[in-house]
Amino acid sequence: MNDVHGWLEAFDQALGSGDSEAIAALFLAEGFWRDHVAFGWTLATHEGGAAIAAFAADRALATGASGWKSEAPAGASEGYISFETALGRGKGYLRLVGDKALTLYTALVELKGFEEPLGTRRPSGMAGDPEGRGRSWKQLLGDETASYAAGKNPYVLVIGAGQSGLAIGARLRMLSVPCLLVDKYPRIGDQWRSRYDSLTLHDPVWYDHMPYVPYPAHWPVYSPKDKVGDWLEYYAGIMELPVWNSTECVRAAYDPARARWDVTLRRETEDGSREHVLHPYHLIMAVGNAGFAKMPQIPDQQDFKGTLRHSSAHPGGAEFSGKRVIVIGANNSAHDIAADLVIHGAEPVMIQRSSTHIVRQTTMTDVMLKPLYSQEAVDSGMTTERADMMVASVPLRLSEAGARATWNALQVSEAPFYESLTKAGFAIDFGEDGTGIAMNFLRTSSGYYLDVGACDMVIDGRIAVRSGLAIDRLVEDGLILSDGSHERADAIICATGFGTMAEWVSRLISPEVADQVGPCWGYGSGVRGDPGPWEGEIRNMWKPTAVPGLWFMGGNFALGRYYSRLLALQLKARYEGLPVEPYAA
Amino acid sequence: MNDVHGWLEAFDQALGSGDSEAIAALFLAEGFWRDHVAFGWTLATHEGGAAIAAFAADRALATGASGWKSEAPAGASEGYISFETALGRGKGYLRLVGDKALTLYTALVELKGFEEPLGTRRPSGMAGDPEGRGRSWKQLLGDETASYAAGKNPYVLVIGAGQSGLAIGARLRMLSVPCLLVDKYPRIGDQWRSRYDSLTLHDPVWYDHMPYVPYPAHWPVYSPKDKVGDWLEYYAGIMELPVWNSTECVRAAYDPARARWDVTLRRETEDGSREHVLHPYHLIMAVGNAGFAKMPQIPDQQDFKGTLRHSSAHPGGAEFSGKRVIVIGANNSAHDIAADLVIHGAEPVMIQRSSTHIVRQTTMTDVMLKPLYSQEAVDSGMTTERADMMVASVPLRLSEAGARATWNALQVSEAPFYESLTKAGFAIDFGEDGTGIAMNFLRTSSGYYLDVGACDMVIDGRIAVRSGLAIDRLVEDGLILSDGSHERADAIICATGFGTMAEWVSRLISPEVADQVGPCWGYGSGVRGDPGPWEGEIRNMWKPTAVPGLWFMGGNFALGRYYSRLLALQLKARYEGLPVEPYAA
Repeated sequence: MNDVHGWLEAFDQALGSGDSEAIAALFLAEGFWRDHVAFGWTLATHEGGAAIAAFAADRALATGASGWKSEAPAGASEGYISFETALGRGKGYLRLVGDKALTLYTALVELKGFEEPLGTRRPSGMAGDPEGRGRSWKQLLGDETASYAAGKNPYVLVIGAGQSGLAIGARLRMLSVPCLLVDKYPRIGDQWRSRYDSLTLHDPVWYDHMPYVPYPAHWPVYSPKDKVGDWLEYYAGIMELPVWNSTECVRAAYDPARARWDVTLRRETEDGSREHVLHPYHLIMAVGNAGFAKMPQIPDQQDFKGTLRHSSAHPGGAEFSGKRVIVIGANNSAHDIAADLVIHGAEPVMIQRSSTHIVRQTTMTDVMLKPLYSQEAVDSGMTTERADMMVASVPLRLSEAGARATWNALQVSEAPFYESLTKAGFAIDFGEDGTGIAMNFLRTSSGYYLDVGACDMVIDGRIAVRSGLAIDRLVEDGLILSDGSHERADAIICATGFGTMAEWVSRLISPEVADQVGPCWGYGSGVRGDPGPWEGEIRNMWKPTAVPGLWFMGGNFALGRYYSRLLALQLKARYEGLPVEPYAA
Repeated sequence: MNDVHGWLEAFDQALGSGDSEAIAALFLAEGFWRDHVAFGWTLATHEGGAAIAAFAADRALATGASGWKSEAPAGASEGYISFETALGRGKGYLRLVGDKALTLYTALVELKGFEEPLGTRRPSGMAGDPEGRGRSWKQLLGDETASYAAGKNPYVLVIGAGQSGLAIGARLRMLSVPCLLVDKYPRIGDQWRSRYDSLTLHDPVWYDHMPYVPYPAHWPVYSPKDKVGDWLEYYAGIMELPVWNSTECVRAAYDPARARWDVTLRRETEDGSREHVLHPYHLIMAVGNAGFAKMPQIPDQQDFKGTLRHSSAHPGGAEFSGKRVIVIGANNSAHDIAADLVIHGAEPVMIQRSSTHIVRQTTMTDVMLKPLYSQEAVDSGMTTERADMMVASVPLRLSEAGARATWNALQVSEAPFYESLTKAGFAIDFGEDGTGIAMNFLRTSSGYYLDVGACDMVIDGRIAVRSGLAIDRLVEDGLILSDGSHERADAIICATGFGTMAEWVSRLISPEVADQVGPCWGYGSGVRGDPGPWEGEIRNMWKPTAVPGLWFMGGNFALGRYYSRLLALQLKARYEGLPVEPYAA
């Protein structure tokens, strides 16, 4: 029982006996069973013997799991695993310490009888009209999109057709769940096209694949923003997603009597603006953390005579050649915008209100992501699916410990770089508890810059920095800082971030429902911006919420890719009327 | 020496000695050396000892080939091979009979120092503007496309941005050869969108990948035509190809004094119509065999009161519900159009002027293409690149023999199907020499129907057939056939095919240049439509022609995919000033 195969055999027997204490006894006392949908029909990490026993008592027999397998070599203490349940097929990962499990990860990957139409299951493409009227493939697609304007209700309505909306749309499409996406922009990808010129993805291409359609081998390591926008537009076409563009969600309310939503949409078409009320059973918020601009209210704002705008309305530095521009904020967008201003011959001043976590692109790409998401990983046989599963297999408590160790080492190896930044007057941190960017992202999605070149400009002074200061007020030709100093500027760009998903709920549904749902994102780590209690999974994302039929989709490209499958399977099971009662501890 | 490794060692030694007789002695007396660019800087098959010796005498030492390798197991009598030359890297395939080569295939796959930017060589995507002006990725692409309107000359101009033009455009892009594509349609893919609604590709998806960007796993087996059109549009974006749409080539003339072309283009933009004269060094005709409609001149045509149109102008059968429609022709389009008329409740009559080669889709997919291009092949590890190389490795003389054997067997196994068709009055053939569709395609690209359902309609009479008859004349309500019979019709669709590439040359350049080039396509098989002498390669395609700087690109998706690389390497070598004198027997 000292290897993966032996443990799985013992686990299979214990599950079959339904003896929850025997099951828990297979784990270390401080072990983890992270289950994503396969057993618990939600995303949850069960930590320690008591929690595992409780989970097992509720689910061991009911799930009907069997067929536990692993390709791990004999004697291996960890490896990928696969299994079946009564309803579906699962995969996961197991890590042993001695003969006990430190971590077991179980995830549902498909439902029996509802396998995706891939490979040998793909459609023929010929004689596509099921009713034999000779409608072409394109006409049938158009019919479907138009049907929702003619009174048909989608089973699922997705608000937002950025990368997250498109990912869940594609997953649902592959599972034949009727789904409509709506997006406020006229063209898919406009969220990206409308940003500042120098924007690229800050994660490398191997980490950023969308589901089903990987980037080809010539795709740049860091996708320029217009290329991202175009790719998303192509993606919607390739995946045949019904999307209403130029459509804003005005309001949404759940109708408990009919167990469905009343969603009012305002859609602009060539024929003018029209309101539609749709009644989907499920509503997915895929509006992102970058959905609406968070503009600070600064005293005497009206006095400033120059250009004042939010980063999301800033197309690039071309117009400011020779001008002095203040950038408020010191995270990703602030740095990108400042660097672009330098390139365009402007003189940027960055106002850093609190410390920032800085990660060099090379650190991210060549150290942190390299084992799983890199050309080397691909060339040595690592697939995106396995890489994603490996990441998901690590409980967040262990991720924290690993991240802390990584950053303890990086603070030493990268010390000269960080010292230069400090010397330039820039305030550095490594996360409140030293866990750095990965946890930072999962906690608050803010407070960091992935350095793609701006740090050198800070170090050599091309980007001036005023750090640790608040903004007192605006004046005619600039602003006054909290130390009384006057910064002159022709323009002020507020790289002050975006509203949260919970704020979206408050706006579109109601503040009461937003309260009922609680915070979306963060996992209860207890740091600023992510208060406890400890949750162990990202709050409210990709899983049932406190409001029936309300779901949240989001994350970066990698999280959206992986978790969209889990969300889609939960919805498909409901669509097919399968028993899917989520486990509640 | 009785296996691939032993033979390659002997071949390497013989090449190194420069002894052409010794080289030829390694081949069977009736052996073949098919070389695509690697040694001869053209596409040529050298058949028999004398031809091989002559080729070797000219090229053995000059090419500087070395490093012959194979992954074939010891003792294997055939296998994939790889090698280097002084200028590049090559791959191929070797088949032995005893210790002699029956076939050696050598193909150039890349030039040293000019490897494609794939995988680890992909661009960063950040800081894209080489001149540091902060131009974004999209702006730089736009600058490039616009530069050709502002007087810059592309090194290569491609006429036609259908699948063939886009394939060579993508290959040249990956090799950094400045290239502009022009296309008469307003949007990329319109060649496909403008066809009849029921059109799908008749080859399966595994055979139809474009270079660099494979179809994803959910793509239908037979792509509907609008989906093909959209995919090509996405492809141009994904490959970042500079294309002028709504642009017709008015005329082209080679200027021998300046060794460049004078090409007049008429381009429609939002600002109106404008003529541009460009001076590329190389002109690629990628106009296809489906470039312009071939409309028959039928006596008394003006007398017919109904709708008379070419298949390319026929959008589908919806308008002819309850009507009687004559379809002239009995190849792919004629069958598709007739079947679509049936689905729309029309009554089609097919006029078959001469016999047709019919291949059931299942035969094509499950018998002929299955070993190399199928889900089973993919799942068992066959890659598109290896499949393509396997096909290219077979000299056309052996392909003919193989095709004849296949069709001898298929005529037996499929006899009941063919008898039913004959009983329905439909005239069948299997190619003039019984070699069937594959050779048929390489000889004349016509005379066949890949059955996707129309044959059943012919057999059960839903599609009426009048066979072996010419059209005498049109009359007010239909036409009179050569046997004097009168066929009434509300509409007549002429599925009578398209002009040849040589006709395009005659139109765009001059009849004299068209004569100088000679026929494009066919390989001198000696059958009707493809007169001898035997050429052993497709005439004038993807290789130097009799006119300097004039090249032809075309074929189905599979040929375009494979041969575009060979054509692009020939052009890249010229662009870089490498010595590339084509071998002339």
